[in-house]
Amino acid sequence: MRLALYQPDIAQNTGTILRLAACLDTPVDVIGPTGFDISDRALKRAALDYLPHVRIDRHESFASFMTARNTANPASGRLVLLTSHAATPHFQFEFASTDTLLLGRESAGCPAHVHDSADARIRIPMRTGLRSLNIAVAAAIALSEALRQTSGFPASAPVPLSQT
Amino acid sequence: MRLALYQPDIAQNTGTILRLAACLDTPVDVIGPTGFDISDRALKRAALDYLPHVRIDRHESFASFMTARNTANPASGRLVLLTSHAATPHFQFEFASTDTLLLGRESAGCPAHVHDSADARIRIPMRTGLRSLNIAVAAAIALSEALRQTSGFPASAPVPLSQT
Repeated sequence: MRLALYQPDIAQNTGTILRLAACLDTPVDVIGPTGFDISDRALKRAALDYLPHVRIDRHESFASFMTARNTANPASGRLVLLTSHAATPHFQFEFASTDTLLLGRESAGCPAHVHDSADARIRIPMRTGLRSLNIAVAAAIALSEALRQTSGFPASAPVPLSQT
Repeated sequence: MRLALYQPDIAQNTGTILRLAACLDTPVDVIGPTGFDISDRALKRAALDYLPHVRIDRHESFASFMTARNTANPASGRLVLLTSHAATPHFQFEFASTDTLLLGRESAGCPAHVHDSADARIRIPMRTGLRSLNIAVAAAIALSEALRQTSGFPASAPVPLSQT
């Protein structure tokens, strides 16, 4: 399982998503151009000290991201776009452990050619009339369901009560 | 399904959780004292214009929260604490639609008496050695799994593609 961020424009959200990805052991593709640098202070403040624990693959453009996917060995799995325009609720979608979950830009989602490049599209059902979840929250909901279905959550033990 | 926040101390996270709760139609108990006022600018910046769409019940203390629960009609369901000390992974827990998901303070979790007051305790499995998810991210993962299990996601249609 991988996460891919399409031209993210809010550094803090990307930081929160990188922390999520570190904790859930999920590599992240960051597709440029981004609205900030990876050294951005807001990104680092949100990612805390988790940044060194996440594998980040940076791509200059969506085209170079797709080229990297198409030439990957072993072959890349499906590209699954999270979008409010999709018919399928995320929890009714059958995830595979080789899927890459693609998240649009906070301000504007994805252009049509990106929407059409995805192998599948899913939606987190929300109250009618409300626009969107925070993108890190949406990433968490989709990624955790994908990991649940594919037995992909990290194996770990509870933190002992003394260790607080 | 309800969310309960124990003495939250970061206004922005609470704002993000209130936006999540609005979008997923889930009432929120805010248990004081909080580290900020509900009118806090960082809270409003994170909650955006979703704040009027979420039902918030505020409680002065954990004791008054428990009193409100114990005298509620219809009777309150279980109090399910999210904590890194729990043995049960969240996706192996059997949620009920009457559950209240309790989240600890960002900086310090919950004291022992709160931990012991919960009817059940669950944990989001993470990579060993990493401390924690952002609390809004953790809330999203637990709440979405609880709603999935109890068929509690709002019924809604995809946003038409023209409406972007």
